[in-house]
Amino acid sequence: MKIGVLGGDGYCGWATALYLSARGHSVSIVDNFLRRQWDHELGVQTLTPIQPLSDRLKVWHGLTAKQIELFVGDVTDYEFLSSYLQTFEPEAVVHFAEQRSAPYSMIDRKHAVFTQVNNLVGTLNLLFAIREFNPQCHLVKLGTMGEYGTPNIDIEEGYLTVEHNGRRDVLPYPKQPGSFYHLSKVHDSHNIMFTCRAWGLRATDLNQGVVFGTMTDEVALDEGLINRFDYDEVFGTVLNRFCVQAVTGKPLTVYGKGGQTRGFLDIRDTVRCVEIACLNPALEGEFRVFNQFTEQFSVLELAHLVKTAAEKLGFGVEISHLADPRVEAEEHYYNAKHSKLIELGLEPHLLSDSLLDSLINIAVKYRDRIDLSSMAPQINWRKPRNERRPQPAQTAPLGLSEEPFARPEGLGEWSDPRWVAEDCETAGAQSNTRPRSVPRAFPGSARG
Amino acid sequence: MKIGVLGGDGYCGWATALYLSARGHSVSIVDNFLRRQWDHELGVQTLTPIQPLSDRLKVWHGLTAKQIELFVGDVTDYEFLSSYLQTFEPEAVVHFAEQRSAPYSMIDRKHAVFTQVNNLVGTLNLLFAIREFNPQCHLVKLGTMGEYGTPNIDIEEGYLTVEHNGRRDVLPYPKQPGSFYHLSKVHDSHNIMFTCRAWGLRATDLNQGVVFGTMTDEVALDEGLINRFDYDEVFGTVLNRFCVQAVTGKPLTVYGKGGQTRGFLDIRDTVRCVEIACLNPALEGEFRVFNQFTEQFSVLELAHLVKTAAEKLGFGVEISHLADPRVEAEEHYYNAKHSKLIELGLEPHLLSDSLLDSLINIAVKYRDRIDLSSMAPQINWRKPRNERRPQPAQTAPLGLSEEPFARPEGLGEWSDPRWVAEDCETAGAQSNTRPRSVPRAFPGSARG
Repeated sequence: MKIGVLGGDGYCGWATALYLSARGHSVSIVDNFLRRQWDHELGVQTLTPIQPLSDRLKVWHGLTAKQIELFVGDVTDYEFLSSYLQTFEPEAVVHFAEQRSAPYSMIDRKHAVFTQVNNLVGTLNLLFAIREFNPQCHLVKLGTMGEYGTPNIDIEEGYLTVEHNGRRDVLPYPKQPGSFYHLSKVHDSHNIMFTCRAWGLRATDLNQGVVFGTMTDEVALDEGLINRFDYDEVFGTVLNRFCVQAVTGKPLTVYGKGGQTRGFLDIRDTVRCVEIACLNPALEGEFRVFNQFTEQFSVLELAHLVKTAAEKLGFGVEISHLADPRVEAEEHYYNAKHSKLIELGLEPHLLSDSLLDSLINIAVKYRDRIDLSSMAPQINWRKPRNERRPQPAQTAPLGLSEEPFARPEGLGEWSDPRWVAEDCETAGAQSNTRPRSVPRAFPGSARG
Repeated sequence: MKIGVLGGDGYCGWATALYLSARGHSVSIVDNFLRRQWDHELGVQTLTPIQPLSDRLKVWHGLTAKQIELFVGDVTDYEFLSSYLQTFEPEAVVHFAEQRSAPYSMIDRKHAVFTQVNNLVGTLNLLFAIREFNPQCHLVKLGTMGEYGTPNIDIEEGYLTVEHNGRRDVLPYPKQPGSFYHLSKVHDSHNIMFTCRAWGLRATDLNQGVVFGTMTDEVALDEGLINRFDYDEVFGTVLNRFCVQAVTGKPLTVYGKGGQTRGFLDIRDTVRCVEIACLNPALEGEFRVFNQFTEQFSVLELAHLVKTAAEKLGFGVEISHLADPRVEAEEHYYNAKHSKLIELGLEPHLLSDSLLDSLINIAVKYRDRIDLSSMAPQINWRKPRNERRPQPAQTAPLGLSEEPFARPEGLGEWSDPRWVAEDCETAGAQSNTRPRSVPRAFPGSARG
């Protein structure tokens, strides 16, 4: 089918665009490269040396003969967005084109206002453009599990059946987001739900957990297709940060007690979930919500998983607890439902030792690009104005227990398949317990 | 106490500023006169000839020797707003300074985006300014009962206790707003709730019903203090429209079946509720929600009340049903709680024949200013783009059954006390059944 990927130059967007293209869909990317601009603003960069989008698209075309169309522009520009919808005529648009970092939104007032206005206006524009020019188009919107917060009851998928004073209704699940970014997603969800009801639009809100992993089958084809690996305090995710800390001999920095529990998923599941949503569109007027994650972990559990995996590879790892810069419950009940995508065919890639090995080995591979200064939390949720400035870069040796500065024993070159986990999928196993499929490494790439 | 009224030139804001000033509070008004600008844009005006704010403030000072300070500026301008908070140092800010019309927000994309960005950024700015410059200041925010929509269960005041799968929590009441405007208020509520939690701000969200009435004791002192009476399709409220239709012999236009049930309150209760909220501030970190209305009516019930009252005054009145331009349930369950303000001392002014007489008589008094063309609904919720243009003005004679074109028998001049309802409050009656207090007419005003 014809699928537009808005924000297709970002971490999830890029992997999704390639996956959908590989699966035979006609794909276009819309992006304005704002995500790359934020790296410059913050003085940080992805650990992996991502190429300019135009180069990436050429590599993809060279390898697969598949063309991904590129539309450069901003979704907050209605004229541009309308023209895109009329030109490409997508059957589904996957909307990743938002500012997606909670810490970024908490820097100060300007960043909070930017995040909310940018995300809100982009999504409003998209709703109006779909209604005006392509009302059958299915909106697949990236939400976040963070919209729900951490209630003391089970989290359902979007809606909650409530019995109250002898009456009953199915209501939108109450939202308790924990940052101006998460709030922007809640605002979006309400706006989208309204237009489904008022205008009969069809929409799926993918309330995604924290994504881990860098490799998908497609990205693994060539280093020129390499995806982002963000580990800095602003755009980095906790698992990436832990891996970088582990290989540089720095303690894994757990915020507070580390009992913060969240849903997580492998990026290979992100791309599959998006395809599942596209292939099974919401009905006219339906606002459908899927909780898009496969496993729950607490931050401390993740730290211990990384510690164990890194120690097996020869790194000495400590865990330290920092004062939590965020305002969040450090210990809480958490049980979030996530069965709808499984019912539609998702086969989860659960977090495994082999995947952790692969992530750690990416950190090893690009150790020269590690900037330790970028990981220290500088953005305090309790302050309305954080004077965050890029810190002088601080490089670090490898943190091997026995042989500091040396490559862990047995690790080969980039294209060594041991840098990504083994493919060990077993047909017939239960979907949520089955061993997981993992991507191949770049096969003999000449790059990097 | 020192109270700032943001949006103090508008309908509720003006009445509130005068009331608080009369009660001995030190009051300042912040306004940028955008509400008056929208009248020009839409080609409509309030039925009552409101004076420029500077003139109104002079009249107030002349009558009472009380000074209301004026700060002219836009709350979306952070520099201005910060400077205001630092200069005036309010103990409470009452935030009316938002675009408050649902139809206005539904005109087209530009009006939807404007409404949401204007309201969201103004409120975000206020939250940051309070946090930075006056963190003990109590935010009294005008929300709307429309945030809840029309669920099939009782509506509680802000929070809902949920039992689910054997566990229990108190969660924000689920929101199902019915226009881009109502959505903006939901966005605000989520943003405010978060800052109470993250920053310890103190806030009260007044989820207000539909306000009726023009007179308060203060406004009634002089015609130079007269308040807005909006009856047009965009900013007008249904009761005002019905009164104008009744006196001009036009059918009362009920949208759809008229089973749409909402909470209503007298503007004299609005001003008192705001004072009650200010005098009983939320605790540090508390996000408190009061449902601010006193009675529920369906639109059809209101039409019949106006018909009966107008017929007693000699007008012939018909009721007609138009296709509903909004997307809303035309018949539904509705039972919304509203006890918290009563518990804090509110004594409601329930809708009475005498108040209806007073509203109808205002329509008679200013009949020469009535523009019938402004009442026809031109904004269809189902369309993403309504080509609304000001219509040629259309004046109409009075719609008296027996004596067309003549003043109803027995009606005197503007200052005749019969133009407002009688004061018949009886001490000791039950608060929600007691006869209501009503304001005096302008005593012998030389104006108008």
